[in-house]
Amino acid sequence: MAAENEVYVGKKGVMNYVLAVVTQFNQGAKEVHIKARGRAISKAVDVAEVVRNRFLPEVQVKQIDISTEELQGEHGVSKVSAIDIVLAKE
Amino acid sequence: MAAENEVYVGKKGVMNYVLAVVTQFNQGAKEVHIKARGRAISKAVDVAEVVRNRFLPEVQVKQIDISTEELQGEHGVSKVSAIDIVLAKE
Repeated sequence: MAAENEVYVGKKGVMNYVLAVVTQFNQGAKEVHIKARGRAISKAVDVAEVVRNRFLPEVQVKQIDISTEELQGEHGVSKVSAIDIVLAKE
Repeated sequence: MAAENEVYVGKKGVMNYVLAVVTQFNQGAKEVHIKARGRAISKAVDVAEVVRNRFLPEVQVKQIDISTEELQGEHGVSKVSAIDIVLAKE
């Protein structure tokens, strides 16, 4: 279960995550973090853009952080890039 | 041909673009823009992370912008997300 005000983007369709973000803002959140790792990073950017351009034009991109996370896999530790896009209501 | 201080990330392997970025810094660039569209966005983040973690630890992520671009295709205009990661030398 994701923490409050966080949406983890994974393998579902873009609109699933867009809806999750819009719902959090509509429930009163001032900021929502859109997080993703690896190939889902592209989709996280899509989610942020669709939220802003189609649903909540008053929402701004407040900050974007990128990082490298270490994942414990079957064959040892592998590194994967990650993104954290912070959307904020004015 | 990409403009000076810009590296467009596409279908090649990550290390191709890492080398291009490192080369630009080694030739005296103070900033390098790493740009990508669509699914290549994830790879652009990988490029930025590998440059910083493995080759040029003194380079910082100065700014990250996301946007939506319109592409003219065979069947009309389609929208695609884009990213611009600015790496800068201290």
